[in-house]
Amino acid sequence: MSDAYTPTSRTRVVREPQRAVYDRDAAYAILDEAFICHVGFTLDGQPYVIPTSFGRNGDELYVHGSAASRMLRSLDTGIPLCVTVTLLDGLVMARSIFNHSMNYRSVVVLGTATLITEPAEKLEALRILSEHIIRGRWDDVRQPNEKELKATSILRLPITEFSAKVREGDVIDDEEDYSFPTWAGVVPLNLQWGPPIPDARLLPGQEVPWYAEHYTRKK
Amino acid sequence: MSDAYTPTSRTRVVREPQRAVYDRDAAYAILDEAFICHVGFTLDGQPYVIPTSFGRNGDELYVHGSAASRMLRSLDTGIPLCVTVTLLDGLVMARSIFNHSMNYRSVVVLGTATLITEPAEKLEALRILSEHIIRGRWDDVRQPNEKELKATSILRLPITEFSAKVREGDVIDDEEDYSFPTWAGVVPLNLQWGPPIPDARLLPGQEVPWYAEHYTRKK
Repeated sequence: MSDAYTPTSRTRVVREPQRAVYDRDAAYAILDEAFICHVGFTLDGQPYVIPTSFGRNGDELYVHGSAASRMLRSLDTGIPLCVTVTLLDGLVMARSIFNHSMNYRSVVVLGTATLITEPAEKLEALRILSEHIIRGRWDDVRQPNEKELKATSILRLPITEFSAKVREGDVIDDEEDYSFPTWAGVVPLNLQWGPPIPDARLLPGQEVPWYAEHYTRKK
Repeated sequence: MSDAYTPTSRTRVVREPQRAVYDRDAAYAILDEAFICHVGFTLDGQPYVIPTSFGRNGDELYVHGSAASRMLRSLDTGIPLCVTVTLLDGLVMARSIFNHSMNYRSVVVLGTATLITEPAEKLEALRILSEHIIRGRWDDVRQPNEKELKATSILRLPITEFSAKVREGDVIDDEEDYSFPTWAGVVPLNLQWGPPIPDARLLPGQEVPWYAEHYTRKK
């Protein structure tokens, strides 16, 4: 059974409320299909938005946090973050400019993030983040050494306060516009993964692994 | 000739500085290929990041600003914003976890945004935003009426303080890792636009326009 949740005043969807999805499973499906997020933080009154990779471990997000980690080191109590994930599914061309739209699925997570410092915990968070992006890769590669672990920042953000928003399907025009003589419809958008390009210095006999040959974000 | 610029302390690329692109034309090419951005603003100490559409008019960005417009109405002097645009080009699978990366192109624009209020200016901004997303569409659709114009918020952000970052090309491993026995390479990523899905209530004789049939972000 799906796990509905109650939004806060900060995460209740005000604009286009019919697109809001107050369902934890649906939000997690969006988070799991995505592989980069945009992280927002504030420094001296100026907001910054940085694209980065992330993973999900149950009800927590792990965010690759190099950009935010400098400021985080000066804070003992964590840092207010916003992590936003957006999947684009198409362009919606209506008869009026006003009703043009996009099909998309997005999740916004608000909260206070903390830096993961304990080495074993950081290693496990890194594994989860890696597997989120390329499932199966972790066991095939040279594991991080102590120096690399130290040079990596991972932020933990509980998925407590969040909202999801989905726009799908057809054009929705105002009734009186259906007689306006123009084409209307949806142009679908998909991510297309090309054939893997092997590194020039590959050792002999290294075959392309399944996760590179058939890379997909679909479950 | 390309227009180089000098970053501020807020936009100088600190992490992976070799990926920084301090060239206005290169940054504009990234902005023009993208069609959504992630806008960051701060409210009561909490950062928010919202995906939205945008356009470029010379050295200004026009951002569809419904999410931020509520807070903007209470500010006479504008609102500190961050607009970030990210294009993903591929997954980079190195021999070590640490050197895994993504190929991407991104631009971060910082500054103070103002709401466009003058109706003629707003209409022109909306046209530029529309043409940024679907070139050719504006002339084919029912133009916005007064009520719709009023219900639309567009923010203007000068492209003054910004940075661009690009990672492209092959795997870069530590020299001692090239003997590690695993596959390494790049899995390229492209946006794929599907065949247009005509609206069910299309008037007879409405052909698919060229911008829908052959939709592309490439110039």
